[in-house]
Amino acid sequence: MDWFYKQPVKIIFGIDKVKDLYNILKDLNYKNGLLVCGPSFAENGAAEKILDYSKGLITKIFSNIVPNPTVDNVDNCADVIRKNNIGFVLALGGGSPIDCAKAAASLCKTEDSIVLYHNQEKKFGKEHIPLIAVPTTSGTGSEVTAVSVLTNPHIGRKAPLASENFYPEYAIVDPTLTLTVPKQITASTGLDVLSHALEGFWSKDHQPICDALALHAASLVFKYLEKAYINGEDIEAREKMSEASLIAGLAFGLPKTTGSHACSFPLTNIYKLPHGEACAFTLDYFTRINAEAEDGRVNDFAKQLGFKDANDMADRIKELKFSMNMKVSLQDAGIRDEEVETLAELSIHPNLLNNPVKMEKKDLIEMFRSFK
Amino acid sequence: MDWFYKQPVKIIFGIDKVKDLYNILKDLNYKNGLLVCGPSFAENGAAEKILDYSKGLITKIFSNIVPNPTVDNVDNCADVIRKNNIGFVLALGGGSPIDCAKAAASLCKTEDSIVLYHNQEKKFGKEHIPLIAVPTTSGTGSEVTAVSVLTNPHIGRKAPLASENFYPEYAIVDPTLTLTVPKQITASTGLDVLSHALEGFWSKDHQPICDALALHAASLVFKYLEKAYINGEDIEAREKMSEASLIAGLAFGLPKTTGSHACSFPLTNIYKLPHGEACAFTLDYFTRINAEAEDGRVNDFAKQLGFKDANDMADRIKELKFSMNMKVSLQDAGIRDEEVETLAELSIHPNLLNNPVKMEKKDLIEMFRSFK
Repeated sequence: MDWFYKQPVKIIFGIDKVKDLYNILKDLNYKNGLLVCGPSFAENGAAEKILDYSKGLITKIFSNIVPNPTVDNVDNCADVIRKNNIGFVLALGGGSPIDCAKAAASLCKTEDSIVLYHNQEKKFGKEHIPLIAVPTTSGTGSEVTAVSVLTNPHIGRKAPLASENFYPEYAIVDPTLTLTVPKQITASTGLDVLSHALEGFWSKDHQPICDALALHAASLVFKYLEKAYINGEDIEAREKMSEASLIAGLAFGLPKTTGSHACSFPLTNIYKLPHGEACAFTLDYFTRINAEAEDGRVNDFAKQLGFKDANDMADRIKELKFSMNMKVSLQDAGIRDEEVETLAELSIHPNLLNNPVKMEKKDLIEMFRSFK
Repeated sequence: MDWFYKQPVKIIFGIDKVKDLYNILKDLNYKNGLLVCGPSFAENGAAEKILDYSKGLITKIFSNIVPNPTVDNVDNCADVIRKNNIGFVLALGGGSPIDCAKAAASLCKTEDSIVLYHNQEKKFGKEHIPLIAVPTTSGTGSEVTAVSVLTNPHIGRKAPLASENFYPEYAIVDPTLTLTVPKQITASTGLDVLSHALEGFWSKDHQPICDALALHAASLVFKYLEKAYINGEDIEAREKMSEASLIAGLAFGLPKTTGSHACSFPLTNIYKLPHGEACAFTLDYFTRINAEAEDGRVNDFAKQLGFKDANDMADRIKELKFSMNMKVSLQDAGIRDEEVETLAELSIHPNLLNNPVKMEKKDLIEMFRSFK
């Protein structure tokens, strides 16, 4: 089996690590930083706290970002970087600020709009300013991947943009930042972590290092997600979910995701299911289906996690979704019977090609219809 | 728990990957390379083959290296690099050529002897030429670590030298290169892999990513080492041992090794046990001892590998050593009773401090005396 692995992001992990920010930045000789975060952090004082921890090494805040970051957000952010001669970017948040910052840290070295790159008319050279990613949810794993998902509202296009430049220099993962994440977001983002681990593992492009990391991350989710959901202040559970999120990010970054992510996109775009909940909607189904692949890998994976087999693991995923009030049926999700065919069509996304068992439109229809 | 992780080496893995060398080097825009290897490869045609595969992008061979590479080997190698304006180094071999090349690729940017760095009088700056490491044994994991172990015969000092520069740019891991490794070297180097995995896992400086990789590597060794020993041409077993060696390298690179490596040094220096065999000499004992650490991690590890507990895993290690004709007793190793005290003293090496259970001289004496 041939494989290629790289993982250039340096990882600083630990409780209260953000309080060390000044020393971390000083050691790196980083100056005149821009904090990129969502507007809520700018309003609730979290952003100011980060500025305080940086003791003057971060000088400005950019928080003009919407939940699915737009090309305009990126263009504006790059403008701020250029005009203020910013030396580095620290992105604080869930996936959105990190994705916006990834693109802006390269775009600022050009005079272009990000639209040219999002449309694949241009490719980034190597020039970019350093990026530090500081996740505040245990979910996307964006802090260790080279992908930025951007939306161009002018032409109604949401698509990933990838560049070697987008790997952050550092990920600072401080579990205390996730302590205030609300219950339902803890559940949804935590199931995104599980999807990354499972999909990275069973992806057609799976590879050994990612396999080992997927197993580790999945085992943590099964052990700690429900605890973090039940008691958001359970610091051990939060710490283990931060670890799971980061390590699942490493596990799927190269093999990419598969069926559940493919099917999640219309569930989010049309039925407004949060991303992780949308991935989880089909995750137990794909677990059962993919266990039928010839190589038997999904059953082995489940057994190594202490399950009887892949079906037993799928049962546990379903149970987790129930116990955390996730949507599990067409009715829950507001999907009418007559919409299933369109939903199946819209689920035919490139990620579906990575799925170890081939799924065609009729299979997807059968799958969705089974969610009674 | 606080931890830091980095792993800058890009990994190209697969059967016959060296045959692709020209394309790999061309993509990297590497030219005028120096092949660093042991004298046997220069004599048996293996070195010439690599030059052929490079289609002119490697222009010279340096093979003046002894098994425990000396400071003189490094000085000479750096001279060759300087005089020939070499653009990159490709190190082919076990640990020795890779360790020599790591040091020479930085030293060549100075006018110094490596002795100054080996004595810790000087530290390397960032300047170095790129290094590609191509392992030919499944053992050291040196292709993914930042350490070079060098010997200064003039003062009788063997010591590791570490530098961020020493991480190779690329590791090209081609299992076919290990097909001709003789039986006893397969056994010894394979047990070195197992030591890296177990010691990286139970090291006081253990950390989650390395833990997950240690588990993966150890599971491969238990499954495939004996197969590779019994039939050296079993390409599946060789491939899995190549994978295990590389991944164990990632697993111990940051946490470092512990008791078994500490005790291995006098066993090699005085009693001439090959490195892996010397590590394995105490590995089952340390497995039992370290299972007594409060955290119960070693028992958990063993159970995840399908063993009843750590003792069961230790039994399997002992069995493996017997079945592969490794030295298992003082008598086998030529250690006389009256030498045990000195052997224990010489085993008190910094690595012993990483061991999760404290071992003092009296404990080491008790351990060695138990090897009847």
